[in-house]
Amino acid sequence: MKKLHLIIVMSGMFLFSCGKTENKSTQPATGIVSDPLPSWNEDASKKAIIDFVTKTTQEGSVDFIPVADRIACFDNDGTLWSEQPLYFQFIFALDRVKALAPQHPEWKNTQPFKALLKGDMKTVMAGGEKALVQIVMTTHAGMTTEEFEKIVKDWMATSIHPKTGKHYNEMIFQPMIELLDYLRANGYKTFIVSGGGVDFMRPWVEQAYGIPPDQVVGSSGKLKYEVKEDGIPVLIKIPELNFIDDKEGKPAGIHQYIGKRPVFTAGNSDGDYEMLQWTSTATGYPRFGMIVHHTDSVREWKYDRGSHIGKLERGLDDASKYNWVIVDMKNEWKELH
Amino acid sequence: MKKLHLIIVMSGMFLFSCGKTENKSTQPATGIVSDPLPSWNEDASKKAIIDFVTKTTQEGSVDFIPVADRIACFDNDGTLWSEQPLYFQFIFALDRVKALAPQHPEWKNTQPFKALLKGDMKTVMAGGEKALVQIVMTTHAGMTTEEFEKIVKDWMATSIHPKTGKHYNEMIFQPMIELLDYLRANGYKTFIVSGGGVDFMRPWVEQAYGIPPDQVVGSSGKLKYEVKEDGIPVLIKIPELNFIDDKEGKPAGIHQYIGKRPVFTAGNSDGDYEMLQWTSTATGYPRFGMIVHHTDSVREWKYDRGSHIGKLERGLDDASKYNWVIVDMKNEWKELH
Repeated sequence: MKKLHLIIVMSGMFLFSCGKTENKSTQPATGIVSDPLPSWNEDASKKAIIDFVTKTTQEGSVDFIPVADRIACFDNDGTLWSEQPLYFQFIFALDRVKALAPQHPEWKNTQPFKALLKGDMKTVMAGGEKALVQIVMTTHAGMTTEEFEKIVKDWMATSIHPKTGKHYNEMIFQPMIELLDYLRANGYKTFIVSGGGVDFMRPWVEQAYGIPPDQVVGSSGKLKYEVKEDGIPVLIKIPELNFIDDKEGKPAGIHQYIGKRPVFTAGNSDGDYEMLQWTSTATGYPRFGMIVHHTDSVREWKYDRGSHIGKLERGLDDASKYNWVIVDMKNEWKELH
Repeated sequence: MKKLHLIIVMSGMFLFSCGKTENKSTQPATGIVSDPLPSWNEDASKKAIIDFVTKTTQEGSVDFIPVADRIACFDNDGTLWSEQPLYFQFIFALDRVKALAPQHPEWKNTQPFKALLKGDMKTVMAGGEKALVQIVMTTHAGMTTEEFEKIVKDWMATSIHPKTGKHYNEMIFQPMIELLDYLRANGYKTFIVSGGGVDFMRPWVEQAYGIPPDQVVGSSGKLKYEVKEDGIPVLIKIPELNFIDDKEGKPAGIHQYIGKRPVFTAGNSDGDYEMLQWTSTATGYPRFGMIVHHTDSVREWKYDRGSHIGKLERGLDDASKYNWVIVDMKNEWKELH
């Protein structure tokens, strides 16, 4: 159980997300209606999305959903942006260890930091969950929430993906931005429900996805309220887990933070299975479950079963049982970014 | 520390709120502008509110706040509705014990249930925190989230306040409804940040205050995701604390759930002190802190220092230091409900 918990910690704390594409708003139905999803080919997924949105927003339709209940939840890593070869939040954590190393001479002789600083990722990974938790706690706690926000923003502005050479926030998926815009133009309230750290996501998701901080659900550490000597209060991020928003944590997170059951949910890995299941088994309204399938080894990465990041197995096995729409990234997405 | 924690539990779990007044929307500035706060007398608080909203929404003003940062947080018990002679959520818990008694014959011989069922509140209270926690855990856990929602809705529809004879949701403050509407009409996003249970509030606050469930922050218990034999998943409320949204928990809750620092905050007791402090010490924008002072022994209750519910002491002492606006309920509110 403890091991499982730590594995969840790892996948939870290291998942995260980023981007800064400007929202290209779709036009609501006034005058000429343009294609709301121009980066999507005219295939099954696009048709299913448009059919669902149309029937649920048509007053008088048996499938009509009142605006207050149009809740749409999106996973982030692998769903709204890429997640290979490592969750970007993990790369952030590794970068932070390097940046903090001068203040920690003891790391030269302490694992996993020693190995990490030498670029020996094999030894880091051999340290298993313990090593990963140490890296997360060291890099995500011990500062105020405002200091951490600045660290994330600075990193996002200056860091480059090791394979693509792009800024991380240039690796968000344009088709998904269009989908978010399309849903919002039709009265849907869009939320992120990610295993990634909420404090890692919030500094940039509003600009990237048009999703405000209070509509971002994620993993988190505990906080301590402290009034400093000058009378100014701060919130200190302390090295203690608060919530892991992954797997069965996702339906729980949706209930705790959003308080309504979604009618539209998109994910890409088995970490999203329970969230999709929680959505698709609800009664009262039609529900839409969608899985982004990473099938594009040229423009992105190709992976599903057995992948060390973003493993998709149960989702594929049970897609037909729950009527989940599988989006074939390679064939259905005209443009990726 | 443990004792303190339990005291917080009590104040946290028992705080809560309710109401079902229809929103009487203020008219935004189209044509003739009507008084946005008709139930407020032309006194200092009304002037301060209107001045603040005017200057923060005027483009070009040095005090202008962009819409995305217009975050307004409201305590619930004692701020948006009454809280005497006991937090209404506590009355709910007591009612639930009575309703559940037939299924628990053992309660006839077990405290605090034995005393409670006899109406002997003195003995219940003598049981201290332990008794209160037992009552909360017994009445707020052991069912699915959906079952609990129905229980709350049914209770709200049928229960009557012991002193006023009114439904609990008829005891919300009309001046505060007007304030919420006025803020929203000016681009403010309104949140509840209450020590009350989030699962107790969400079933009715949307109708009562025009605040959707995802904009309600409150105390909560943990949840367990479980797939039943028929393949249908449920979230079970388990008797374990998740988060206490009171005192220094309020700024933490605001960060965890909302992710932005409020510019407008209203409370009524020392449980709101840190939330008000967190708001008023922030830089960058003007901030508004407001305390509803219960001064009306005829139309409501008169209490502050030394009250067993809604104690207001530090808030009064430090109001001038932080420029908090004290609303004199008796003299400043034309109508209460």
